[in-house]
Amino acid sequence: MQSLSASSLEPRTLKVLAFDIFGTVVDWHGSIAREMRERYPQVDADGFALAWREGYAPAMARVMSGELPWTLIDDLHRQILDGLVADFGLSHLGQDERAHLNRIWHRLSPWPDVAQGLTRLKQHYLVCTLSNGNLNLLTRLSKQAGLPWDCILSAETFHAYKPDPRTYGGVARVFDVAPEQVMLVAAHHDDLAGARACGLQTAYVERPLECGALHPKDVQADPANDMHVRDLLDLADQLGC
Amino acid sequence: MQSLSASSLEPRTLKVLAFDIFGTVVDWHGSIAREMRERYPQVDADGFALAWREGYAPAMARVMSGELPWTLIDDLHRQILDGLVADFGLSHLGQDERAHLNRIWHRLSPWPDVAQGLTRLKQHYLVCTLSNGNLNLLTRLSKQAGLPWDCILSAETFHAYKPDPRTYGGVARVFDVAPEQVMLVAAHHDDLAGARACGLQTAYVERPLECGALHPKDVQADPANDMHVRDLLDLADQLGC
Repeated sequence: MQSLSASSLEPRTLKVLAFDIFGTVVDWHGSIAREMRERYPQVDADGFALAWREGYAPAMARVMSGELPWTLIDDLHRQILDGLVADFGLSHLGQDERAHLNRIWHRLSPWPDVAQGLTRLKQHYLVCTLSNGNLNLLTRLSKQAGLPWDCILSAETFHAYKPDPRTYGGVARVFDVAPEQVMLVAAHHDDLAGARACGLQTAYVERPLECGALHPKDVQADPANDMHVRDLLDLADQLGC
Repeated sequence: MQSLSASSLEPRTLKVLAFDIFGTVVDWHGSIAREMRERYPQVDADGFALAWREGYAPAMARVMSGELPWTLIDDLHRQILDGLVADFGLSHLGQDERAHLNRIWHRLSPWPDVAQGLTRLKQHYLVCTLSNGNLNLLTRLSKQAGLPWDCILSAETFHAYKPDPRTYGGVARVFDVAPEQVMLVAAHHDDLAGARACGLQTAYVERPLECGALHPKDVQADPANDMHVRDLLDLADQLGC
């Protein structure tokens, strides 16, 4: 069925937009720093947000190498948090408070263009997540932020984290389309390169303040991407939505 | 994390409503019979719809027994269709026409109470699908019908069909809640019994015309269920939404 349905369609006809989440759709740094300043004003909120996020790639690498079994991001986030509390003067936090703090990743705020951008894009395309966040995290985050996904796909769906090819190829297989009919939308060049290697189209989203106002990102265009957009409203404009 | 988070909550506090789809949320018989009458007026539309659906449980049983490898419902539907065409005078249909006809399961119409019922229920609960339909089928069906799921879960998520315990227990595990904090909403007693055996709460939905006006269903209450509702508006009323 896969080959039949895919081959009967115009191969470059874009059908599915798959969105990275952390940094691309939601402002993890701003959301974490804001909540930390409110709840724990003695903590270096900027440094804490950055350190928590920096633990993420090494933790996933330990899973993908086989050192750790398959682990949900909620659990990796918690392991990283437990390793950070001493450095940030939070060793006194009990189990319930740590569990609540860990769910900060379920409460991240979207960038201001996201809800309107997705609403326009989903009139023309199937819009889904493709995030290393687990289904619970993505579902609760999307529900509280009102993000109108057609479907939530996660590393959990494929039992592999991006940039494993099973994730990018998995989106095309799930929706029974050719890889070039899927576009990954992301603010990170390594993610986009992984998608490109699997034959997906790619759109880079500028999120210059992803790591906070003190750490502006270089958002120069990479000509390897099919599109370069300022935000999701710009993506909708450029796609004629 | 599972045991910690679940045990810290009031166990009978309902958090998640998981919905069966075929018959419970969408009118498969009416949708298929209507489209068949329009496109193939010479065919016994009622008999064709029933025969297609009747092939479904035996096909899944062949997968679960290990006779067939893991197979998406779209592909099972197609195998059943290919076995039916001769009996219904449709042997002349080519590959493209069969592929289009098979996607009738992506175009099923919801019962009239569904969109409004889900919109009310999702203000208070996390609402998700739990269907043997594959993710592509459920996503496209929900998109065209405007069904506002918080998350789409499928047999494909768990690599097992209902009533396998991995599906019911999987909903609780995905959302990090206790089984009794999930309620399965379905129009079929065997599905509800499977959920109950895994510790889920259950709501039976009357869909007396699921198999068409010529074949009304017995919709008598089974006291084993936590709730018995006429439709999703009645479910919202009874849950105080």
